[in-house]
Amino acid sequence: MRAAFHDDLDAIFTDLTSVCELVSVAVRDATLALLEARNDLAEQVIDKDVEIDDARERIEENALELLSLQSPVAGDLRIVVAALRMISDLERMGDLSVHVAKIARLRTPHPAVPDIARPTIERMAEVAEQMVERTCQILRDRDVSAAQDLVADDDEMDRLRRKSFAELLGQEWTAGVEPAVDVALLGRYYERIADHAVTVANRVVFVVTGETPSGS
Amino acid sequence: MRAAFHDDLDAIFTDLTSVCELVSVAVRDATLALLEARNDLAEQVIDKDVEIDDARERIEENALELLSLQSPVAGDLRIVVAALRMISDLERMGDLSVHVAKIARLRTPHPAVPDIARPTIERMAEVAEQMVERTCQILRDRDVSAAQDLVADDDEMDRLRRKSFAELLGQEWTAGVEPAVDVALLGRYYERIADHAVTVANRVVFVVTGETPSGS
Repeated sequence: MRAAFHDDLDAIFTDLTSVCELVSVAVRDATLALLEARNDLAEQVIDKDVEIDDARERIEENALELLSLQSPVAGDLRIVVAALRMISDLERMGDLSVHVAKIARLRTPHPAVPDIARPTIERMAEVAEQMVERTCQILRDRDVSAAQDLVADDDEMDRLRRKSFAELLGQEWTAGVEPAVDVALLGRYYERIADHAVTVANRVVFVVTGETPSGS
Repeated sequence: MRAAFHDDLDAIFTDLTSVCELVSVAVRDATLALLEARNDLAEQVIDKDVEIDDARERIEENALELLSLQSPVAGDLRIVVAALRMISDLERMGDLSVHVAKIARLRTPHPAVPDIARPTIERMAEVAEQMVERTCQILRDRDVSAAQDLVADDDEMDRLRRKSFAELLGQEWTAGVEPAVDVALLGRYYERIADHAVTVANRVVFVVTGETPSGS
């Protein structure tokens, strides 16, 4: 029964990694759609989100089946519950990519992000993408040391968010209200993607070590 | 064992209802802080969020203990998992109230919401408060019929969000960029509070009827 439990658990983690990779593509394509004003890519991100939603349902069913059939207790139980939570986080990251894509779609053929805001938003997107990729790696390899780097990335994300606000509220902002609102919401979406990445990574650390990293 | 299970489950639902009531107060106070530019209330909402976080941990522990000791299967298992998810939703609603309170605090002694945006934001806040109160009632009484009304409220929330965007992007907006960004983010926070309220209510419907309402 213990061996069966661990096989089933491995299968769930493999599935979580696949979903993470779908999310990684969604974040990257949504950003490309945004920065290059590409409607086709925006539509693609929006359309493909259903794959992430479907995968969520499948993984949840598998986790519930595992709980039903194996009735794990103590540490094993917490691992399955952590997996259930990770899939929720990953699904939200997919939804947030859709929000980015929808802003891109709304403004095409024009770029949603004015030049003055572009370097900061570009960097936010890059950091978010990196964090998602790292999260996939952490999930795939149960690499808890990589979770440390993620915290540093998240600090950079916080700084970038403040910088972005300073830009859009500064004297040099001449782009008007609409792009300011877009940029503020985009900042929020990338920040939330980063938050969820940290949460997933911390759950993996918990699964591997039995300890929740401090500050999470 | 079945009787014990249902007693424990009732206790979890009683706890969820208490947390919902804390969230209800947080949403109301954050809104008051926002609309009356009251720094004291904003600080209070921010400080008291830890109570919601603590309650979340306690309820999670109880739910895990229930899973461990009783190893429920099938429908019972899904009910406990639904409870675990509801507490996550409620905690997020608390966090979102903190975000509203932080915008209020940032702008005091001035009101964050300019006059032109006030009626719509006021109504969004009112709808959000109503929805949270209704969610508490649904949790308390397992009143699935009330979940229907919640869907209508959520439709109004969507309309209000669009209205708010139209206002801040319209010709008559003379308040500038900063209030526009505040109003856009506030709209997002109230909309997310409403989303989570619907999600919690739908989970209660699922727990009572075994069916997930359509469109959720």
